[in-house]
Amino acid sequence: MRITVLSGGVGGARFTRGLLALLRDRLPDGRGGTTAEVTVIANTGDDMWLHGVRVCPDLDTLMYTLGGAVHEEQGWGRRDETSRVSADLAAYDVGWDWFTLGDLDLATHLARTQWLREGRTLSEATALLCRRWGLAEQGVRLLPMADEPVETHVVVADPDAGPGAERTIHFEEWWVRHRAALPALRFVQVGLGSAQAAPGVLDAIASADVVVVPPSNPVVSVSTILAVPGVRAALASTAAPVVGVSPIVGGAPVRGMAAQCLATIGVDATAEAVARFYGRRDDASRAGEDVGVLDAWLVDTVDAEAAEKLAADGWRSAAAATLMTDVPATARIAAEALALVGR
Amino acid sequence: MRITVLSGGVGGARFTRGLLALLRDRLPDGRGGTTAEVTVIANTGDDMWLHGVRVCPDLDTLMYTLGGAVHEEQGWGRRDETSRVSADLAAYDVGWDWFTLGDLDLATHLARTQWLREGRTLSEATALLCRRWGLAEQGVRLLPMADEPVETHVVVADPDAGPGAERTIHFEEWWVRHRAALPALRFVQVGLGSAQAAPGVLDAIASADVVVVPPSNPVVSVSTILAVPGVRAALASTAAPVVGVSPIVGGAPVRGMAAQCLATIGVDATAEAVARFYGRRDDASRAGEDVGVLDAWLVDTVDAEAAEKLAADGWRSAAAATLMTDVPATARIAAEALALVGR
Repeated sequence: MRITVLSGGVGGARFTRGLLALLRDRLPDGRGGTTAEVTVIANTGDDMWLHGVRVCPDLDTLMYTLGGAVHEEQGWGRRDETSRVSADLAAYDVGWDWFTLGDLDLATHLARTQWLREGRTLSEATALLCRRWGLAEQGVRLLPMADEPVETHVVVADPDAGPGAERTIHFEEWWVRHRAALPALRFVQVGLGSAQAAPGVLDAIASADVVVVPPSNPVVSVSTILAVPGVRAALASTAAPVVGVSPIVGGAPVRGMAAQCLATIGVDATAEAVARFYGRRDDASRAGEDVGVLDAWLVDTVDAEAAEKLAADGWRSAAAATLMTDVPATARIAAEALALVGR
Repeated sequence: MRITVLSGGVGGARFTRGLLALLRDRLPDGRGGTTAEVTVIANTGDDMWLHGVRVCPDLDTLMYTLGGAVHEEQGWGRRDETSRVSADLAAYDVGWDWFTLGDLDLATHLARTQWLREGRTLSEATALLCRRWGLAEQGVRLLPMADEPVETHVVVADPDAGPGAERTIHFEEWWVRHRAALPALRFVQVGLGSAQAAPGVLDAIASADVVVVPPSNPVVSVSTILAVPGVRAALASTAAPVVGVSPIVGGAPVRGMAAQCLATIGVDATAEAVARFYGRRDDASRAGEDVGVLDAWLVDTVDAEAAEKLAADGWRSAAAATLMTDVPATARIAAEALALVGR
């Protein structure tokens, strides 16, 4: 069984970890892994150059989470992380001190940057990094959505520069420094024009038995992957069913600041509105950039009404407990999602 | 009084620290500093890009030593240094693990790289780094010899590729990884053709009251500075006397692997031979790239005979205790050097 996941950071990483636990149980390979093949296509829109090194937040959150190295409570970064370098760096007053640059995490950035500087692609560097964390042995392959930098920038009002003036900041600055509290006018994917899907991405969608959109940020994570040339078309034409899990539970994101992102693009922070934002693949009224990407949508039990409304509209939708409180609970969520598309 | 020092790493840094102690004593400014103005022109030939960050060994050794942050016994790097990042980095098997990348030192590299990536020159980045260490308050200004990268590479025999075959490695790889034990055929300064002296360098030589060549590596530190376009001409024409302190004591370098460097260029590892390698400014038989740079040469008491032979040849030369065992002893060496040129 081939499963392809379109993932952002923490939510997608935790979901995929639960999915792998489910697959080890259902399709064991006899060596502690699974015979299933899971491909995770990661959002790289949050990536940035910082102090000369390439930081890839979602790829690293996925790698650490699936590799058993993640800081569990925090959801991202390394367990037993320290900040010896960044504490000393602060004394130079170089700026960007709002961005946490852990010592262990920095080792990952330095290794990746060395490989990129040697001419390797981000896909290649990611594969080299993943060797350490044994992802292949678990039956999972981690791919960046694109090898070319496609960075999400945020256009915000700049009242200091005059009425109606705007300025653009990197997504991480908006997200981490301003905690998404600075009203965003719109998101811009810089570099999209010269980007193409990384090797394996389109094929992983085309040849999948099921495609999953985990409870990741629909705007700045999943939509960024969807914006990569060819991805929407691959989703539209794949024989695999596409099932999503709502990141919105009871009118608010389970974690993170997705509500601010949804508000920016004019979508309500409800399980139903996010489903309609993604759109149904068989909805003939949508086309081009707006073509629907989902067949099915799993919502939380508190949003059972949304599932009913969507079902009345022709969706495959159901409600289940979707809080990823631990790995077994998350495996059950993955099972519910797969069941929704008959897998 | 304006003093300009042409320095490599450890030897030049320790000498300059002693010189500053001497000047604080002789020319106090009433605030714990000195009214003298010391400009240190640092070799940047050992610089390199490592894992995406710019490493400048000699600039940093100078900055840490003069700023009171150096690892005293080691002579370079930071006091209380740790290797949390590099220990974790080793698990990625990215190579270059022979190069010590301390956590605190890494903060310096990251800050410098951030500023370079923002478009600042190495001179500007160096000045920003030096703010933290209070160099200006001590009356000392640290300049890279050039803003453009001028990296020393080492041509070595490559017997695996066939008889007579050669390969070129970065100086740091030869120096740190191979401990200078790999026979060097020659040194190459890569980037010299498009480099010019950094802002302030030529003027610091031209307007000096005295120029000092401290006991640095004559081949890969001082000669690299001398190779920067305009530096030899500035030394030839400055009204200031130029005095050097021998890095060779009793037929061997006081520290480091200068002997291997001298052997590569066919110069004996003696105090006298190094003086003649630098050459006398008033030696009319030398011209162009070979024009002499010194007026005076201080050797150790064990090399008193060399001083006598040089003096018989028209040099201002004397012997004194030149082991930089501590700061007061080093201040006395600086005093001897200045006395040799009447300062």
